[in-house]
Amino acid sequence: MSEDELAIRNVVASWLEATRRGDSQAVLDLMTDDALFLVPGQPPMDKAAFAAASRVQADAQWQISAQSEIQEVQVEGDMGYLWQRLSVTIAGAGPEPVTRSGHTLTIFRKVRGRWLLSRDANLLGRV
Amino acid sequence: MSEDELAIRNVVASWLEATRRGDSQAVLDLMTDDALFLVPGQPPMDKAAFAAASRVQADAQWQISAQSEIQEVQVEGDMGYLWQRLSVTIAGAGPEPVTRSGHTLTIFRKVRGRWLLSRDANLLGRV
Repeated sequence: MSEDELAIRNVVASWLEATRRGDSQAVLDLMTDDALFLVPGQPPMDKAAFAAASRVQADAQWQISAQSEIQEVQVEGDMGYLWQRLSVTIAGAGPEPVTRSGHTLTIFRKVRGRWLLSRDANLLGRV
Repeated sequence: MSEDELAIRNVVASWLEATRRGDSQAVLDLMTDDALFLVPGQPPMDKAAFAAASRVQADAQWQISAQSEIQEVQVEGDMGYLWQRLSVTIAGAGPEPVTRSGHTLTIFRKVRGRWLLSRDANLLGRV
Protein backbone atom coordinates (compact mmCIF):
# COMPACT_ATOMS: atom_id res chain seq x y z
CA MET A 1 0.00 0.00 0.00
CA SER A 2 1.41 3.42 -0.95
CA GLU A 3 2.01 6.16 1.62
CA ASP A 4 -0.70 8.28 -0.02
CA GLU A 5 -3.26 5.46 0.09
CA LEU A 6 -2.47 4.83 3.74
CA ALA A 7 -2.84 8.56 4.50
CA ILE A 8 -6.27 8.64 2.81
CA ARG A 9 -7.40 5.59 4.78
CA ASN A 10 -6.23 7.33 7.94
CA VAL A 11 -8.37 10.39 7.11
CA VAL A 12 -11.43 8.12 7.06
CA ALA A 13 -10.42 6.45 10.34
CA SER A 14 -9.77 9.82 12.01
CA TRP A 15 -13.06 11.18 10.65
CA LEU A 16 -15.10 8.32 12.09
CA GLU A 17 -13.27 8.45 15.41
CA ALA A 18 -13.76 12.25 15.71
CA THR A 19 -17.43 11.81 14.80
CA ARG A 20 -17.80 9.19 17.51
CA ARG A 21 -16.24 11.58 20.05
CA GLY A 22 -18.50 14.41 18.87
CA ASP A 23 -15.38 16.45 18.02
CA SER A 24 -16.76 18.41 15.11
CA GLN A 25 -13.73 20.72 14.86
CA ALA A 26 -11.50 17.70 14.28
CA VAL A 27 -13.85 16.58 11.50
CA LEU A 28 -13.81 20.04 9.91
CA ASP A 29 -9.99 19.97 9.96
CA LEU A 30 -10.08 16.84 7.76
CA MET A 31 -11.84 18.57 4.84
CA THR A 32 -10.85 21.25 2.32
CA ASP A 33 -12.33 24.72 2.72
CA ASP A 34 -14.33 24.18 -0.48
CA ALA A 35 -15.59 20.72 0.54
CA LEU A 36 -18.99 19.68 -0.81
CA PHE A 37 -21.31 16.91 0.31
CA LEU A 38 -23.82 15.44 -2.13
CA VAL A 39 -26.79 13.47 -0.79
CA PRO A 40 -30.04 12.30 -2.38
CA GLY A 41 -32.90 14.78 -2.51
CA GLN A 42 -31.07 17.80 -1.15
CA PRO A 43 -28.90 20.63 -2.46
CA PRO A 44 -25.13 20.19 -2.05
CA MET A 45 -23.94 21.00 1.48
CA ASP A 46 -20.81 23.13 1.91
CA LYS A 47 -18.38 23.26 4.83
CA ALA A 48 -20.31 26.02 6.65
CA ALA A 49 -23.55 24.04 6.40
CA PHE A 50 -21.74 20.90 7.55
CA ALA A 51 -20.38 22.81 10.57
CA ALA A 52 -23.83 24.15 11.41
CA ALA A 53 -25.36 20.66 11.23
CA SER A 54 -22.54 19.32 13.43
CA ARG A 55 -23.27 21.98 16.07
CA VAL A 56 -26.95 21.03 16.10
CA GLN A 57 -26.01 17.35 16.55
CA ALA A 58 -23.52 18.18 19.31
CA ASP A 59 -26.04 20.37 21.17
CA ALA A 60 -28.63 17.61 20.93
CA GLN A 61 -26.04 15.10 22.18
CA TRP A 62 -26.59 12.62 19.41
CA GLN A 63 -24.32 9.60 19.62
CA ILE A 64 -23.03 8.70 16.19
CA SER A 65 -21.14 5.49 15.54
CA ALA A 66 -20.03 4.21 12.16
CA GLN A 67 -18.48 1.14 10.62
CA SER A 68 -16.53 1.46 7.40
CA GLU A 69 -15.36 -1.18 4.95
CA ILE A 70 -13.11 0.57 2.45
CA GLN A 71 -13.45 -1.07 -0.96
CA GLU A 72 -10.93 0.86 -3.03
CA VAL A 73 -8.47 3.74 -2.88
CA GLN A 74 -6.82 5.16 -6.00
CA VAL A 75 -4.38 8.07 -6.15
CA GLU A 76 -3.05 10.17 -9.02
CA GLY A 77 -0.77 13.06 -8.05
CA ASP A 78 -2.63 15.23 -5.55
CA MET A 79 -6.05 13.72 -6.29
CA GLY A 80 -7.48 10.51 -4.94
CA TYR A 81 -10.77 8.75 -4.60
CA LEU A 82 -12.11 6.15 -2.21
CA TRP A 83 -15.30 4.20 -2.03
CA GLN A 84 -16.52 2.34 0.97
CA ARG A 85 -19.43 0.50 2.43
CA LEU A 86 -20.54 2.54 5.44
CA SER A 87 -23.04 1.92 8.18
CA VAL A 88 -23.92 4.80 10.53
CA THR A 89 -26.04 4.49 13.67
CA ILE A 90 -27.45 7.62 15.30
CA ALA A 91 -28.80 7.45 18.84
CA GLY A 92 -30.49 10.32 20.63
CA ALA A 93 -32.28 11.82 17.63
CA GLY A 94 -35.50 9.87 18.25
CA PRO A 95 -36.96 7.25 20.53
CA GLU A 96 -34.92 4.50 18.82
CA PRO A 97 -31.44 4.49 17.26
CA VAL A 98 -31.51 4.77 13.47
CA THR A 99 -29.05 2.98 11.20
CA ARG A 100 -28.29 4.01 7.65
CA SER A 101 -26.16 1.87 5.36
CA GLY A 102 -24.81 2.05 1.86
CA HIS A 103 -21.85 3.37 -0.08
CA THR A 104 -19.95 6.61 -0.33
CA LEU A 105 -17.73 7.78 -3.18
CA THR A 106 -15.29 10.40 -1.96
CA ILE A 107 -12.68 12.65 -3.57
CA PHE A 108 -9.56 13.61 -1.63
CA ARG A 109 -7.05 16.36 -2.40
CA LYS A 110 -3.52 16.74 -1.08
CA VAL A 111 -3.22 20.29 0.28
CA ARG A 112 0.16 21.41 1.62
CA GLY A 113 1.14 17.78 2.13
CA ARG A 114 -2.05 16.68 3.90
CA TRP A 115 -4.82 14.60 2.33
CA LEU A 116 -8.23 16.17 2.92
CA LEU A 117 -11.76 15.25 1.90
CA SER A 118 -13.02 17.55 -0.86
CA ARG A 119 -16.13 15.96 -2.48
CA ASP A 120 -18.38 13.30 -1.02
CA ALA A 121 -21.36 11.49 -2.50
CA ASN A 122 -23.31 9.79 0.27
CA LEU A 123 -25.67 7.03 -0.85
CA LEU A 124 -26.66 5.81 2.60
CA GLY A 125 -30.28 4.86 3.12
CA ARG A 126 -32.35 3.73 6.05
CA VAL A 127 -32.12 -0.01 6.70
CA MET B 1 -10.95 24.96 -20.44
CA SER B 2 -8.25 22.30 -20.78
CA GLU B 3 -8.33 19.65 -23.52
CA ASP B 4 -8.83 16.95 -20.86
CA GLU B 5 -11.75 18.79 -19.25
CA LEU B 6 -13.38 19.25 -22.64
CA ALA B 7 -12.89 15.55 -23.43
CA ILE B 8 -14.56 14.55 -20.14
CA ARG B 9 -17.50 16.87 -20.83
CA ASN B 10 -17.79 15.27 -24.27
CA VAL B 11 -18.00 11.79 -22.69
CA VAL B 12 -21.04 12.96 -20.73
CA ALA B 13 -22.63 14.53 -23.83
CA SER B 14 -21.97 11.39 -25.90
CA TRP B 15 -23.31 9.18 -23.09
CA LEU B 16 -26.59 11.10 -22.86
CA GLU B 17 -26.98 11.21 -26.63
CA ALA B 18 -26.31 7.45 -27.00
CA THR B 19 -28.77 6.77 -24.16
CA ARG B 20 -31.40 8.86 -25.93
CA ARG B 21 -30.85 6.85 -29.13
CA GLY B 22 -31.02 3.57 -27.19
CA ASP B 23 -27.50 2.75 -28.42
CA SER B 24 -26.31 0.75 -25.45
CA GLN B 25 -23.10 -0.43 -27.16
CA ALA B 26 -22.04 3.18 -27.62
CA VAL B 27 -22.65 3.78 -23.90
CA LEU B 28 -20.62 0.68 -22.96
CA ASP B 29 -17.74 1.97 -25.12
CA LEU B 30 -17.60 5.11 -22.93
CA MET B 31 -16.78 3.22 -19.72
CA THR B 32 -13.76 1.27 -18.47
CA ASP B 33 -14.01 -2.52 -18.32
CA ASP B 34 -13.93 -2.34 -14.52
CA ALA B 35 -16.58 0.43 -14.30
CA LEU B 36 -18.77 0.45 -11.19
CA PHE B 37 -22.07 2.21 -10.55
CA LEU B 38 -23.10 3.03 -6.99
CA VAL B 39 -26.76 3.81 -6.25
CA PRO B 40 -28.75 4.02 -3.01
CA GLY B 41 -30.07 0.78 -1.56
CA GLN B 42 -28.45 -1.61 -4.02
CA PRO B 43 -25.16 -3.44 -4.42
CA PRO B 44 -22.63 -1.86 -6.82
CA MET B 45 -23.42 -2.61 -10.46
CA ASP B 46 -20.57 -3.66 -12.77
CA LYS B 47 -20.30 -3.29 -16.55
CA ALA B 48 -21.90 -6.70 -17.26
CA ALA B 49 -24.89 -5.85 -15.06
CA PHE B 50 -25.14 -2.41 -16.70
CA ALA B 51 -25.16 -4.09 -20.14
CA ALA B 52 -27.85 -6.55 -19.05
CA ALA B 53 -30.04 -3.73 -17.70
CA SER B 54 -29.53 -1.79 -20.95
CA ARG B 55 -30.71 -4.79 -23.00
CA VAL B 56 -33.84 -5.08 -20.88
CA GLN B 57 -34.56 -1.37 -21.39
CA ALA B 58 -33.93 -1.62 -25.15
CA ASP B 59 -36.17 -4.68 -25.51
CA ALA B 60 -38.91 -2.88 -23.58
CA GLN B 61 -38.43 0.19 -25.82
CA TRP B 62 -38.12 2.64 -22.97
CA GLN B 63 -37.46 6.19 -24.09
CA ILE B 64 -34.84 7.79 -21.87
CA SER B 65 -34.04 11.49 -22.06
CA ALA B 66 -31.73 13.40 -19.77
CA GLN B 67 -30.66 16.93 -19.05
CA SER B 68 -27.27 17.57 -17.51
CA GLU B 69 -25.86 20.68 -15.87
CA ILE B 70 -22.18 20.02 -15.23
CA GLN B 71 -21.08 21.79 -12.06
CA GLU B 72 -17.37 20.98 -11.94
CA VAL B 73 -14.65 19.04 -13.73
CA GLN B 74 -11.19 18.54 -12.22
CA VAL B 75 -8.31 16.59 -13.74
CA GLU B 76 -5.03 15.32 -12.33
CA GLY B 77 -2.90 13.24 -14.68
CA ASP B 78 -5.01 10.35 -15.94
CA MET B 79 -7.71 10.76 -13.27
CA GLY B 80 -10.58 13.19 -13.27
CA TYR B 81 -13.86 13.76 -11.55
CA LEU B 82 -17.05 15.54 -12.50
CA TRP B 83 -20.22 16.34 -10.68
CA GLN B 84 -23.42 17.40 -12.29
CA ARG B 85 -27.05 18.06 -11.71
CA LEU B 86 -28.91 15.47 -13.77
CA SER B 87 -32.56 14.99 -14.59
CA VAL B 88 -33.62 11.76 -16.31
CA THR B 89 -37.09 11.05 -17.71
CA ILE B 90 -38.07 7.49 -18.59
CA ALA B 91 -41.14 6.86 -20.73
CA GLY B 92 -42.50 3.44 -21.56
CA ALA B 93 -41.76 1.75 -18.24
CA GLY B 94 -45.18 2.49 -16.78
CA PRO B 95 -48.39 4.29 -17.59
CA GLU B 96 -46.77 7.70 -17.02
CA PRO B 97 -43.23 8.97 -17.66
CA VAL B 98 -41.10 9.05 -14.52
CA THR B 99 -38.53 11.76 -13.84
CA ARG B 100 -35.62 11.39 -11.45
CA SER B 101 -33.40 14.32 -10.51
CA GLY B 102 -30.36 14.92 -8.38
CA HIS B 103 -26.59 14.83 -8.57
CA THR B 104 -23.95 12.42 -9.74
CA LEU B 105 -20.29 12.31 -8.74
CA THR B 106 -18.26 10.50 -11.37
CA ILE B 107 -14.65 9.38 -11.71
CA PHE B 108 -13.02 9.26 -15.14
CA ARG B 109 -9.79 7.54 -16.18
CA LYS B 110 -7.69 8.20 -19.27
CA VAL B 111 -7.10 4.81 -20.91
CA ARG B 112 -4.89 4.70 -24.01
CA GLY B 113 -5.57 8.38 -24.63
CA ARG B 114 -9.35 8.21 -24.18
CA TRP B 115 -11.26 9.45 -21.15
CA LEU B 116 -13.72 6.83 -19.89
CA LEU B 117 -16.15 6.67 -16.99
CA SER B 118 -14.86 4.38 -14.25
CA ARG B 119 -16.83 5.04 -11.03
CA ASP B 120 -20.23 6.68 -10.71
CA ALA B 121 -22.27 7.58 -7.65
CA ASN B 122 -25.84 8.28 -8.69
CA LEU B 123 -27.91 10.24 -6.16
CA LEU B 124 -30.98 10.73 -8.34
CA GLY B 125 -34.35 10.41 -6.67
CA ARG B 126 -37.93 10.51 -7.82
CA VAL B 127 -39.30 14.04 -8.14
